[in-house]
Amino acid sequence: MIKNQPIQEFLDKLASSAATPGGGSAAAIMGAMGAALVSMVCNLTVGKKNYAEVEGEMKDVLREAESLRVALTDAIAEDIAAFDSLMAAYAMPKDTDEQKAARSTAIQAGLKQATEVPLSCARLCAEVIALSHRAAAKGNLNVISDAGVAALAAQAALRSAALNVYINVPAIKDRAFADTRVAEVEALLRDAVAQAESTFAVVKGKL
Amino acid sequence: MIKNQPIQEFLDKLASSAATPGGGSAAAIMGAMGAALVSMVCNLTVGKKNYAEVEGEMKDVLREAESLRVALTDAIAEDIAAFDSLMAAYAMPKDTDEQKAARSTAIQAGLKQATEVPLSCARLCAEVIALSHRAAAKGNLNVISDAGVAALAAQAALRSAALNVYINVPAIKDRAFADTRVAEVEALLRDAVAQAESTFAVVKGKL
Repeated sequence: MIKNQPIQEFLDKLASSAATPGGGSAAAIMGAMGAALVSMVCNLTVGKKNYAEVEGEMKDVLREAESLRVALTDAIAEDIAAFDSLMAAYAMPKDTDEQKAARSTAIQAGLKQATEVPLSCARLCAEVIALSHRAAAKGNLNVISDAGVAALAAQAALRSAALNVYINVPAIKDRAFADTRVAEVEALLRDAVAQAESTFAVVKGKL
Repeated sequence: MIKNQPIQEFLDKLASSAATPGGGSAAAIMGAMGAALVSMVCNLTVGKKNYAEVEGEMKDVLREAESLRVALTDAIAEDIAAFDSLMAAYAMPKDTDEQKAARSTAIQAGLKQATEVPLSCARLCAEVIALSHRAAAKGNLNVISDAGVAALAAQAALRSAALNVYINVPAIKDRAFADTRVAEVEALLRDAVAQAESTFAVVKGKL
């Protein structure tokens, strides 16, 4: 499992000429780090006397952040699987008409999967950004910069995932599928990027 | 060494109530992933017939990106060391005047170190952004989205490092030191963030 790889080994493979891991896995790790930093802020807020008033809300945020962290950690491997299966489809034989048809079907299925996986990552990152906003607004001031880093990491992850949607949709023949996915990712970008900037401003104002 | 930790274990510790690792280490990892993705684009451009004209430049970019990747990977541990030594200074005894003076000196040294480390990370990330721009402009179109993710990761890392400069400077008594560091990080933010946005736009335009 890629999540059990040492950081150094992951970075070496990311830098190599191997097709995977690539930007999609890096995006998932950024999103997972964002969720982890929201959890850190909550863990250092819950149980502190000065933050008793927000304890209930911070426990809710922590629970949601941990669930998003699991999903985003799984997304590191999902991106690799989607890319590898698309590459396998492109490598299928194309000597006969039957082979050509089977290859084309597999490529179209692979492209759809390689669009759904980063879109799902983008949705999760939008949720991390919303949580980072709550952590920045109400969390322990001593670690408020970590809520800001959470927002920045999740924002970079969401925008990176969007690039991976954009790179795959042009070759998809099912235009209704492609158009709805592009529309969704653009809505996520618009709303979540603005919220991440607002979180960054809140944090900077408190430093 | 933290760079030898499995990704899952690092994320678990990041999310925990332990003071380290925190946002500074997450920033260094984002920067290192940005450098690694620039290297990936170069490694998939060098040696390709269609990119023979840019081969020399891509080899230069690769060499610089790999050197930045080493420095940013080392910065993961440097952030932890700086934070831990600052915490150790705050924990020093303060019963006598002599103890108070020694503690204050150690805290001031710790704060300066905890400012220099993220500032150094920010400088490295600005260089990664400049390289991602060259990789996006001239690298293999098949992996151009990875040059975009590199720029986004390095941008988030640089802005995160800046938050770690801002959180430490207010308590520094040497105002000349503090002011020059803030001025430098703001110049880096202004220039490098704009260049990362320009890289993102170049990549999006090619998809």
